[in-house]
Amino acid sequence: MEPEPGAVVFIVSTVKLPLITLTTDFGLADHFVAAMKGVILGIAPQARIVDISHQIEPFAIAQAAFTLDQAARCFPPRTIHVAVVDPGVGSARRPLLAEAGGQYFIAPDNGLLTMIYARTRPRVRVISAQRYFRHPVSRTFHGRDIFAPVAAHLALGTAPASFGKLISDYVRGEFERPAPAAPGRWRASILAVDRFGNMITNLPAADFAFLARVPFRLKAGRRVVRRWAESYSEAAPGELLLIAGSSGYLEIAVRESSAVRLCGCAAGDRIELRCASTGGAKTAEALTRTTAERG
Amino acid sequence: MEPEPGAVVFIVSTVKLPLITLTTDFGLADHFVAAMKGVILGIAPQARIVDISHQIEPFAIAQAAFTLDQAARCFPPRTIHVAVVDPGVGSARRPLLAEAGGQYFIAPDNGLLTMIYARTRPRVRVISAQRYFRHPVSRTFHGRDIFAPVAAHLALGTAPASFGKLISDYVRGEFERPAPAAPGRWRASILAVDRFGNMITNLPAADFAFLARVPFRLKAGRRVVRRWAESYSEAAPGELLLIAGSSGYLEIAVRESSAVRLCGCAAGDRIELRCASTGGAKTAEALTRTTAERG
Amino acid sequence: MEPEPGAVVFIVSTVKLPLITLTTDFGLADHFVAAMKGVILGIAPQARIVDISHQIEPFAIAQAAFTLDQAARCFPPRTIHVAVVDPGVGSARRPLLAEAGGQYFIAPDNGLLTMIYARTRPRVRVISAQRYFRHPVSRTFHGRDIFAPVAAHLALGTAPASFGKLISDYVRGEFERPAPAAPGRWRASILAVDRFGNMITNLPAADFAFLARVPFRLKAGRRVVRRWAESYSEAAPGELLLIAGSSGYLEIAVRESSAVRLCGCAAGDRIELRCASTGGAKTAEALTRTTAERG
Repeated sequence: MEPEPGAVVFIVSTVKLPLITLTTDFGLADHFVAAMKGVILGIAPQARIVDISHQIEPFAIAQAAFTLDQAARCFPPRTIHVAVVDPGVGSARRPLLAEAGGQYFIAPDNGLLTMIYARTRPRVRVISAQRYFRHPVSRTFHGRDIFAPVAAHLALGTAPASFGKLISDYVRGEFERPAPAAPGRWRASILAVDRFGNMITNLPAADFAFLARVPFRLKAGRRVVRRWAESYSEAAPGELLLIAGSSGYLEIAVRESSAVRLCGCAAGDRIELRCASTGGAKTAEALTRTTAERG
Repeated sequence: MEPEPGAVVFIVSTVKLPLITLTTDFGLADHFVAAMKGVILGIAPQARIVDISHQIEPFAIAQAAFTLDQAARCFPPRTIHVAVVDPGVGSARRPLLAEAGGQYFIAPDNGLLTMIYARTRPRVRVISAQRYFRHPVSRTFHGRDIFAPVAAHLALGTAPASFGKLISDYVRGEFERPAPAAPGRWRASILAVDRFGNMITNLPAADFAFLARVPFRLKAGRRVVRRWAESYSEAAPGELLLIAGSSGYLEIAVRESSAVRLCGCAAGDRIELRCASTGGAKTAEALTRTTAERG
Repeated sequence: MEPEPGAVVFIVSTVKLPLITLTTDFGLADHFVAAMKGVILGIAPQARIVDISHQIEPFAIAQAAFTLDQAARCFPPRTIHVAVVDPGVGSARRPLLAEAGGQYFIAPDNGLLTMIYARTRPRVRVISAQRYFRHPVSRTFHGRDIFAPVAAHLALGTAPASFGKLISDYVRGEFERPAPAAPGRWRASILAVDRFGNMITNLPAADFAFLARVPFRLKAGRRVVRRWAESYSEAAPGELLLIAGSSGYLEIAVRESSAVRLCGCAAGDRIELRCASTGGAKTAEALTRTTAERG
C-alpha cells in the first residue's frame, strides 16, 4: 500500500525477532542450557531461542554436525545457530563464526560445522573480540561466556566482521564423506543413531543409489549388511538392511528391532563398504575428484 | 479510553503471538522436533511454540491422546495444537484439522484426538490443500512437510475451510471410554503411565466414584487391584490401590513404589473391571446410552 | 532524542516481554509442564518462558536449589523464577514470593530458595491472595493452580505486595553451607550430581581453597577422597579428586569415570570433611561467625 503524495506517514518499526538455535551435549537436567539462555536474553531480550538438541552424546562431534545440519536446513535465513560440543574447551581450539547458506553458525573449531561447510561456500571467522564475551571467561563453560553472548550481539545487529578475521584453515571432520580406499571400497562412518536404533551413515543416498543393483558388503561393528531395501516391509524381521533415509543418507536399519544394538556400534564409528561394480568405481573417482576440488 | 470526537486516531495494530503446541513421539535427541519448529518459524515468524511432550512412547496413541487433552485444557482459546504420533505415516491415513472447544488440532486420523472429540462438538476437516505443504513431501516425515506448515499457515490467519472439507467419519480410539461388557463388568484401558509409575486408566472418576463403596476386582497385567483409597496414606507400602487422580480419571498406584512395574503393563494395555453393584449396572447403562448417542 | 517543543509526539509503547523460568521435578514426558505454560500464557500472553530444568530428581530440594541458583545468576533483572519441587503439596507448607537480587522467585516454602537467600537480602512474602489462583485449586497440582497463575499475574505488573504479607521465618535448607563440627571438621552435603557423575558439594571453593595445601579426608558414601587437583589431568584414571568447579563449589570427580557411581551417593547426601590445619580452624571460626550473623 503506497501512501498518497503529501500524506503524513508514521513508520512504526517492525518488531524484529532474531532466531537463535542451540545444539549441545549438556543434557537437560543441569543448569547449563538455561545459563546460556539467560545470558542471551539479558543481552538480546527480543531473541527467540529454539533448542535443536541438548542430548548429543558427550563429545560426539559427528552426531552434532549431522543433527545441526539436518535441522538448520529447515530454519529461515539469518537464523543464528550456536553449537557447543566441545571436548577441547579450555585448550587453544578457536571459537568460530561462520556465514554459510544465508545463516550464521557459532561453534568451536573442531569439525562441528563439517556438514555445513560441505554444502555451502562458507565465510569463516575466528571470534577474537573479547568485548563481546561475558567476563570473567571461565575455563570450562565457554557456552555461557563466549558462544552465547556472541550470538546475542550478532542478533542485536553487530556485523560479523566485528567479531574477528576471516580464516580458511578451519577444521573439517573426516566423517564429511566416505573416503574411497580403492575401486569398490570405501571407509565410511556412522554419523548418528536415531531413537529407534537406526544408524545413519555418511554414505549419500544419491551417490550410492547403485548399491540397489549390485552385491555389496557393509561391515558395521560385529555385523555385515548385504541387503538393500526400498522399504522396511521388504525385509524379514531381524534382518539388517541398507535403506535411503529421510536425511539424504543411507541408513542401516533392522525391521522391528534396533540395528545399533545388533551391530554394537556408536555414533562416530568407522564402517567399511565393499562392492565389485563399475558403478562403484565411477563413484569412487567422482568422490575423489570432488574431494580434491573442494579440499 | 475513548478518543475525543474529531480526534486523529492512529491504530497501531497489536502484536499477535499465535500459540502453537507440539506433541510427538520423536524424542529430544534427534533433529526432528527442531525441523518442525524451523518450518513453522520460517512461515509464521511471530508464532510461539510450546512443547507438550516429545517423549510419548513410540506409536502410543492412547498416551498421546491423553497427554494432549490434559495439556490442551490449560491453553487459551485459538491455540493451535499439533500432534504427530503416526505409525501410519506414508500410508493412506488422512491428515486432519479439527476445530474443537475453541482451539485447533492438527493430527493424523488415527485416534490421537479421541479425548478432544469426547468433550467437544468438533468440526473436523481432511487436510488436502497441498499448496500449504512443504515440497517435496517426504514419505516418512509429515510432521515437517505437512503438519508443521499447515499449523503455521493457520497461525497466519488462513481460514480452516481453506485446508480441506469437513468429514464425520474420523477415527476414535477404543480407549475413549470403558466398554460395558455386562452389568458390573467393563473392558477398560491404561491411557498413560506417569513418571512415578502410576497408571492412568480410562475410567472417569466421576462415573466410577461408586467403587469407593462396593467390592471390585480390577485386573491389570499380572495383578489384581481390590483397594479403593482417598489418599496414598491409607494404603500399606507396596499395596496396589485405585485412586482418583488430578487428571479426572481413576489411577492405579502403589505407595512408595511403581504400579506399572508391579503389574507389568504399558500404556495402551487393556484392563478388566468387575463388581457386583447396582451402581455399577446403572453406570453400565448410562455409558452404553452415551456411547450410542454420540457414536 | 528529545522532541522539539510543541511537537506532536506519539508514544508507541515498547513491547514488554516478561521472562519466566521454570524449575521442576515433573520430567518432560507428562503434560504437567505444558499445563503450567498454558496457564501462564492464557493470563500473560506476552510472557516468555524458559525451562531451567524439569529433570530434578523427584523431591530433591538441594539439587533444585543449586540448579535454580546457578541458572538465575545468568538471567536479567526482573526475571520471574518459578520452582516447583514440592513433596509437601497438599499439606500446610506455604507458597512464597521472594524479591531477591533484583529478580522474583516463586516456590513452596521448603528450602528451594536456600541458595538465593544465602547471597541476597530477600524480601519474602507468603502468597495468600486466592484471587490470583486458578480455581478450583487441586490438592496435588499447585504448579498449575497456584504457582503458574501467580507468576503470570506478577508478569502482568501486579505488585508483589498484592500477593501476601512479608514474613521472616521462611525455611532454609541445612545444605546451605557446611556445618563446622569442630576445628578441622565439617558436615557437608552433596548438592547435585552432573551429567558426567561429578558430585557438587556445598563446600564453597573460595572458603576451602586451603585444602590445596593441607592433607584432608572427605568421606563420601563408601569412599574417601584425599586428593586435591587443579585439573583432571593431574589425577590418575580412576582416582577420586576434589576440584574447584565452574559452579563456585568444590566438586568430587574422577578422571574418565563417574564419581557418583564409585561413591554410591545421591544428591542431598551428607559427606564429612576432616583436616588438621590452622587454616581449617580459621575457616571454621569464620563460617560459624557468618552463620551466627545471618541466622
